[in-house]
Amino acid sequence: MEAGLTIFYIAIAAGLVALAFAGLLTLNLLRQDRGSEEVRFIGDAIQKGAMAFLAREYLMLSIFVVAMTATLAVLIDWDVTDRVGNDRDFPSTAVAYLIGALASALAGFIGMSIAVRANTRTTVKAMEGLNPALRIAFNSGTVMGVTVVGIGLIGVTVLYWIFKDPMIVAGFGFGASSIALFARVGGGIYTKAADVGADLVGKIELGIPEDDPRNPATVADNVGDNVGDVAGMGADLFESYVGSIIATLALTAVGAAAIGEATPTEFDDNLFVLPLLIAAIGIFSAILGTFLVRTGEGASMGRMLWSLRIGIFGAGALVLIGTGVGIAVLDLNFDLFWVVVVGLVAGQIIGTSSEYFTSYEFRFTKGVAAQSETGPATVIISGLGLGMLSTVIPGVVVVVAMWMANELAGTYGVALAAVGMLSTLGITLATDAYGPVADNAGGIAEQAHLDPVVRERTDALDALGNTTAATGKGFAIGSAVLTSLALMAAYAQVTGVKSLDLLDVNVLMGVIVGSIMPFLFSALTMQAVGRAANAMVTEVRRQFREIVGLMEGTAPPDYARAVDISTRGAMREMVLPGLLAIIAPIIVGSILGPEALGGLLVGAIATGFLLAIMMANAGGAWDNAKKYVEAGHLGGKGSPQHEAVVVGDTVGDPFKDTSGPALNILIKLMSIVALVFAPLFL
Amino acid sequence: MEAGLTIFYIAIAAGLVALAFAGLLTLNLLRQDRGSEEVRFIGDAIQKGAMAFLAREYLMLSIFVVAMTATLAVLIDWDVTDRVGNDRDFPSTAVAYLIGALASALAGFIGMSIAVRANTRTTVKAMEGLNPALRIAFNSGTVMGVTVVGIGLIGVTVLYWIFKDPMIVAGFGFGASSIALFARVGGGIYTKAADVGADLVGKIELGIPEDDPRNPATVADNVGDNVGDVAGMGADLFESYVGSIIATLALTAVGAAAIGEATPTEFDDNLFVLPLLIAAIGIFSAILGTFLVRTGEGASMGRMLWSLRIGIFGAGALVLIGTGVGIAVLDLNFDLFWVVVVGLVAGQIIGTSSEYFTSYEFRFTKGVAAQSETGPATVIISGLGLGMLSTVIPGVVVVVAMWMANELAGTYGVALAAVGMLSTLGITLATDAYGPVADNAGGIAEQAHLDPVVRERTDALDALGNTTAATGKGFAIGSAVLTSLALMAAYAQVTGVKSLDLLDVNVLMGVIVGSIMPFLFSALTMQAVGRAANAMVTEVRRQFREIVGLMEGTAPPDYARAVDISTRGAMREMVLPGLLAIIAPIIVGSILGPEALGGLLVGAIATGFLLAIMMANAGGAWDNAKKYVEAGHLGGKGSPQHEAVVVGDTVGDPFKDTSGPALNILIKLMSIVALVFAPLFL
Repeated sequence: MEAGLTIFYIAIAAGLVALAFAGLLTLNLLRQDRGSEEVRFIGDAIQKGAMAFLAREYLMLSIFVVAMTATLAVLIDWDVTDRVGNDRDFPSTAVAYLIGALASALAGFIGMSIAVRANTRTTVKAMEGLNPALRIAFNSGTVMGVTVVGIGLIGVTVLYWIFKDPMIVAGFGFGASSIALFARVGGGIYTKAADVGADLVGKIELGIPEDDPRNPATVADNVGDNVGDVAGMGADLFESYVGSIIATLALTAVGAAAIGEATPTEFDDNLFVLPLLIAAIGIFSAILGTFLVRTGEGASMGRMLWSLRIGIFGAGALVLIGTGVGIAVLDLNFDLFWVVVVGLVAGQIIGTSSEYFTSYEFRFTKGVAAQSETGPATVIISGLGLGMLSTVIPGVVVVVAMWMANELAGTYGVALAAVGMLSTLGITLATDAYGPVADNAGGIAEQAHLDPVVRERTDALDALGNTTAATGKGFAIGSAVLTSLALMAAYAQVTGVKSLDLLDVNVLMGVIVGSIMPFLFSALTMQAVGRAANAMVTEVRRQFREIVGLMEGTAPPDYARAVDISTRGAMREMVLPGLLAIIAPIIVGSILGPEALGGLLVGAIATGFLLAIMMANAGGAWDNAKKYVEAGHLGGKGSPQHEAVVVGDTVGDPFKDTSGPALNILIKLMSIVALVFAPLFL
Repeated sequence: MEAGLTIFYIAIAAGLVALAFAGLLTLNLLRQDRGSEEVRFIGDAIQKGAMAFLAREYLMLSIFVVAMTATLAVLIDWDVTDRVGNDRDFPSTAVAYLIGALASALAGFIGMSIAVRANTRTTVKAMEGLNPALRIAFNSGTVMGVTVVGIGLIGVTVLYWIFKDPMIVAGFGFGASSIALFARVGGGIYTKAADVGADLVGKIELGIPEDDPRNPATVADNVGDNVGDVAGMGADLFESYVGSIIATLALTAVGAAAIGEATPTEFDDNLFVLPLLIAAIGIFSAILGTFLVRTGEGASMGRMLWSLRIGIFGAGALVLIGTGVGIAVLDLNFDLFWVVVVGLVAGQIIGTSSEYFTSYEFRFTKGVAAQSETGPATVIISGLGLGMLSTVIPGVVVVVAMWMANELAGTYGVALAAVGMLSTLGITLATDAYGPVADNAGGIAEQAHLDPVVRERTDALDALGNTTAATGKGFAIGSAVLTSLALMAAYAQVTGVKSLDLLDVNVLMGVIVGSIMPFLFSALTMQAVGRAANAMVTEVRRQFREIVGLMEGTAPPDYARAVDISTRGAMREMVLPGLLAIIAPIIVGSILGPEALGGLLVGAIATGFLLAIMMANAGGAWDNAKKYVEAGHLGGKGSPQHEAVVVGDTVGDPFKDTSGPALNILIKLMSIVALVFAPLFL
C-alpha cells in the first residue's frame, strides 16, 4: 500500500479515535452524581435553555444552508452562468458545503450538550476536592475539543479522498464557516443581550440578587456562557482547523516549487497528504496531553495553570516528534518540520501575550484598575490604550511567522504553519471550553447554597477559566489570521492572478474597502447587542407582570421563552452583518475583479486582526480590573473605584464576547467565500 | 513670456496677496477695542501663556530641525553613502527642509498670535451684536487660513522655480511635516493635559468653578484650545496643502501618459505648473469667499452655518470657474477639470458626513445621549459603535474619488484631486480656526461677568464653532488621506518599483506592520495624555500650596509656569511617537526594501484613516451628547444622565483632540519620509 493511502487511513483512524475518546469521556461524565434536587433544578433549567437556543438556531440555519446549497449547486457545480468551466452532474461543492454545515453544527451540538451536563457535576465533585472538580470540567472541555478535531479531520479527509479536489473540499470549509457565523456572531449577541437584560431588570429595577432563579433571564445568561464560549468558540476554531488544511491542500503545487520538489500530480502524493498526517498526529498528541492535566488538592492558581500548560506543551512536543518522524518517512524536505514549529510557537506566543495584557498579575491590567481612582472615564481611556498597545506583539509575531514560513516553503508554508498552530487544537480548545463549565459550576454552587469550601474551589476553577479564556481568544484570533492569509493565498493561486499590485487602483480600492469592513461589522454587532438586550428587558418585565406568584417564588418563570426571545433577537440581529460578510466579497469580486477582491481580503485581514486583538484584550483587561478591585484592592467592592471598573467591564462585554470574536469569522468567511466563488470572477 | 513663467508669477502674486490680506485683517483687528480691564487681564494671561508655549516649542523644535537638516545634507545631498547618486555641493534638500520647517512654524506663529488677540475683541464686539462678533472671530480665522496658503504656495513655487526638482521641494514638505508633528501631536497632548489637570485639582479637589482665574492651569486650558485647534490644525493642513502640490509635481510624467499628452520635459511645462495655478486661483477664490460670510442680528445657528457654507461654496464655485478657464488657456486635457471637481466635492461630503454623525441635530448623537438613561457604559458603547459606523461614508467617498481621479488622469489625478480638495483651504481653514476664538470669547465673557446677552451671543458663536470643528476634522482627515495616497504614488514613481504585490510576502508584511502603526501611535498618544495630565496636577497642587494668598485671590498664580509644565510634558511625551513615525519607514525601507515600505504606507494609510475618523466622530458625538443633555434634555445638567454623558465627553477628549488628529500626521509624515529618503532604499 502506498504512503498516501496509508495516511488517509491514519487520518480517519485518528478522527475515529478522537470521537471514541469523546464518547468514553461522555459516558464517564454522565455516570457522575448530579447532586441534590436544588442543584439539579438549576442544571435542568440551563440545559433546557441551551436546547431551546439550539432548536431555534438550527431552524434558522437550515433555511440559510438550504438556500446556499442550492446557490452553490446552480452557480458552481452546474455552472449555469458558464463562467466556472464545470459540467458536473453531481453537485459536489454544494454537497460538501451541506456536509460542512452539518458537521460544524453537530460538533457544536455535542460540545454544548456535554457542557450543560458537566456544570452541575463539576459543582458536586467540588464537594470532594479541587482535583476531581478540575477533571470533570476539563473532561467536558476535552469532549468539545476532540469532537471538533475528530469531525473536522474525518470530514476533510473523506471528502478529499472521494472528490480529489481541494476546491470541492473548500465547500466543506464554507459550510463550516456559515455555521461559525451563526454560532459566533449570534451567540455573541445572545450572551451579552441576556447578560445585560437580566441585570437591568433583575438587579436594578426589582432589586433581586444576581443569578436569582426567579429572574427569567438568569438562565438565558447562564446559557449564554455556553452559547458564546463553548459553541461559538468551537465553531470558530472548527472553521480555522478545516480552513488551514484546505488552504494547504490548495497550495501544494506552490509548496513543491518553493521547496524544490517535483510538482505533485496525484491527489495522494506525499506533499498533499502531509497536512492530514500532521492533523492526525495532533489528535493523538492532544489526547495523550489531556492525561497530563491533573493537580493536587489545595493547588494554587499558578499550579493549576501550569498543569494545563503541561498538557498543552506536552501535546506540542509530541506533535513535533511525530511530525519529524512523519516527514522523514515520507521523504519530504525537512524545512517543512520547521514550518510546523513556527506555527506552534507563534500560536503559543500570541496566546501568552493576551494573558500578559489581561491578567491582573501583570502591570497593564493593574494600571487600568488604578485609573479607577479618577473615575470611569480614565478607566475606559487606559483600557482602550492598553488594547491598542497589545496589538503590537501579536502583529509582529504573525508577520515574523509568516515571513519564516514563507522563506521555508512559500505560501504553502504559511498554510502549513496554520495547520501546525492548530494541530493540538484538541487540547487547546479543551482548556477554553472548560471555562464556561467552571463558571456555571460556581454560579450553581452559589445559587444552591452549598458549603463555602465548595465555592472556594469553584472560584479557583473559575479564575483559572478566565485566564484560559483570554489565552484562548488570542489563540483563536492568531489562528484565524494565519488561516485567512493562507486562504487568501489559495484564492490567488486558484484565480491565477499574477499579482495584487497596490499600484493598481483596483487593488488599492479593495484594500481600503476591506479595511472598512471590520469597522462596519463591529459597529453593527455592537448596536445589535443593544437592541437584543432591549427585547430581553421587555420580556423579563412582561413575565414579572403577567405570571402570578413569580416574584413571591410560588410560580416558576418561563425560562424557555426568555431564552427564545434572546435567541430570536440574536438571530434577527446577525442577519445584516452576516449577509455583509458573504455578499461583500462577491460584489467586489464581480464588479471590481479578482485583484480588487484580493486587496479586500488583505485589508480586512490586517485591520480585522488588530481590531479583534484590541477589543479582546481591552475587554479582558476591564473584566480583570473589576475582579482585581473586587478582590479587595483600591477600595474593594462597593467603592467608587468599583463603580468605575464596573463601567469598564460593561463596555468590555460586547468588545470581548461579541464584536471582537466576530471579526475572526468575518475575515475567515470572506476568505473562504472568495475561494469558493473564485471561478466566477475570472 | 511663456505660460509656465507667467504661472510662477501668478502663484507668487497670489501668495503675496494672501499675506497682504492677512496683514490688512490683522491691522483692522488690532484696532478693535480690547475691552475692560477685567477682560484685558484674562486676555493677557492667555496671550502670555500662548507665547510661553511657542517659546518652549520652538526651542525643542530647533534642536530637532537642525539635526534633521544635517542628516539630510549628509545622506541625501552630499550622498556620503553613495546610494542616492547625487553629487551636489549645495545641500538643496536640507535647505528646502529647513525652509519648510521655518515656513510652517511662521504660519503657526502668526495664526496663533492673532487668535489670542482676537478672543477678547470678539467678546467686546459681542456687546454690540452677533454679526460684528462673528466677523471678528471669523476674520481671525481667516488670517490663519490665508497665511497658511500664502506661505505654503510661495514656498513651494519659489523652491520649485529655483531647484526645478520636485524631490528637493519634497524636502520642504518634510520640513512642514516635522513642525506639524510637534504642533499637532504635542499640541494635542498639551491641550488635553491642561484640560484634565485644571479640572481635577480645581473643580474636584478645591471646589472652585471651572475657568476660575485663580486656577493656574485655567490659562493653560484656554491656551490649549488655540494650540490644538489653531496651531495644530493649521500645521496639519499646511502639510497637506504643500504635500498635495509636491505629489502632483512628482507625478506629472505619469499624468501626461494617463491623459495622453507628451511627457513634459521642461520644469515649467503646463502640466507641471497646473497645481500651482489651481492653488493660486484657490487663494483668490478663498479671499473673495470670505466676503460672503455675514449674518443678520439674531440669526439662528442654522442661518450662521449657512453663512459660512455660502462662503465655502462660493469659493469652491470660483475655483471651478477659474480652473476651467485656466485649463482651457493652458490647452490641457479637460479631464483635469473634472479631477478638481472630484477633489472639491469629496472634501465637502466627508466634512458634511462628520457633521451628520456628530451634531445633536441628527439621530446618531441623539441616540448616544439617549443611552445615558442606562449609564455611562452604554454611552461609551454606543459612541464607539457610532464612531465605527461613521467610517463607512468617508471610506467609500475616498475610494470613489480615488477611482474617478485615477480613471481621469492616473495617479497624477489622485494628487491633483487632493490639490483641488485643498484649493479653498484659505476659507475652510478659516472656519476651523474661528472655533477656538469663539470658544475663548465665551469663556472670557463668563469670567468677566458680562451682560447675559453677550453670553448668549458668544454661546451661539461657540456652538457654531463646535459644528465647524467637526466638519474641519473630517476635512483634515480626508485631505490627509488623499495627500498620503498621492505621496505614496509619488514614492513608488521615484523608487521605480514596478509593483507593490501583496502576493510578495515582503509587501504583505509591510501592510500588516503599517496597520499596526496607527494602533501603536494612538496607544502612545493616549497614554501620553494621562502622564502629562499628572504632571499638571502636581504643578497646580504645588502652586496652591506654595503661593501665599492664591486661594484668597490676593496673589496671582504663575500661569506661565503651569503653561511651561504642560508644554514640557507635551514635548517630552511626543518624542517617542514622533520618532516612531520617522524611523519606522526608514527601518522598513532599509531592511525589507522599497516594496515593503510601499506596503507599510498603504497599511498605515488605510487603517490610520479609519481609526482617525472613528476617534474624531466618536469624540465629537460624545461632546455634543453632553451639550444636548446640558441644553435640558434627558434630565439636564446635574442629573445622572448628565454624569453619564460627561464620562463619554472625557473619553472623547483625547480621542478627538489628541490621538485622532495625530493620525493625520502619522500617515502623511511616513509618506513624505518615504519619498524624501526613497533614493536610499534602492
